[in-house]
Amino acid sequence: MKKIEKLSENTHYSAVNMGSLNDLKDYALIHPVNKRLIEGKVFLKNATNATGTEISFNSLPPQSEQPYFHIHRKNEETYIIIKGFGFFQVDEDCFNIREGSVIRVAPQGKRGIRNSSDEAMIYMVIQSKENSLEEHTTADGERVPVEPKWR
Amino acid sequence: MKKIEKLSENTHYSAVNMGSLNDLKDYALIHPVNKRLIEGKVFLKNATNATGTEISFNSLPPQSEQPYFHIHRKNEETYIIIKGFGFFQVDEDCFNIREGSVIRVAPQGKRGIRNSSDEAMIYMVIQSKENSLEEHTTADGERVPVEPKWR
Repeated sequence: MKKIEKLSENTHYSAVNMGSLNDLKDYALIHPVNKRLIEGKVFLKNATNATGTEISFNSLPPQSEQPYFHIHRKNEETYIIIKGFGFFQVDEDCFNIREGSVIRVAPQGKRGIRNSSDEAMIYMVIQSKENSLEEHTTADGERVPVEPKWR
Repeated sequence: MKKIEKLSENTHYSAVNMGSLNDLKDYALIHPVNKRLIEGKVFLKNATNATGTEISFNSLPPQSEQPYFHIHRKNEETYIIIKGFGFFQVDEDCFNIREGSVIRVAPQGKRGIRNSSDEAMIYMVIQSKENSLEEHTTADGERVPVEPKWR
């Protein structure tokens, strides 16, 4: 079973390598609630000590779908399709998705995803608490003078 | 200038297409503070009506770097490298990054990124408010019975 490698860590950051996106299929985990084996999925929160998001990368086999729809309690989810194409459904709406599709789903949305392509679909899911973001885009950032060490 | 296409929208979701990742270089925006033109960057929060994250996709030209380091006030950032390789620096630490590298940076971390490869580096940045996530992983989700419309 594939594992995330630690890359570097210090007071203000944690860096890891999850490896090539084509190898995501080699990750697996035991679902903490129903104890089923889930293949092709890796979560990043614990590995990176994240405090504002839970991000997963997923590899969905050709011509397959997530086995069940789900909702959330507090968290918004954003799905981003990196490779492959198929369908996404929220409540009664079902639509085509492909590389570059981005779907933000509110906690109450009943969501499901299908890969209709003949290659693995690579997609990511970003969980964050609904309505938690205050400042954003460039408004929260500030330039600082630093001499890059790569020069 | 490339624009995000609306895909579908309803009470519980917003879906868009940002297009092929290789075409991210065709996006551009005017930085709201310093009014400079920034090429190869697209923000997703407004397009998807997200409330917990600001996500950007970025295309950094071959052998180039972000022109300045920055910090944040309230937001944690997670950088994910989708294609290419180079360097990432936080404070005094500089390390190699490549496809599949994930770096979580606390607001105070002084961060910069360089693409050392001969192709565009594709990476994404996810902003969320530090310490905002409460439930996560599978603990926040709940299965619901839905008949997929794609069948």
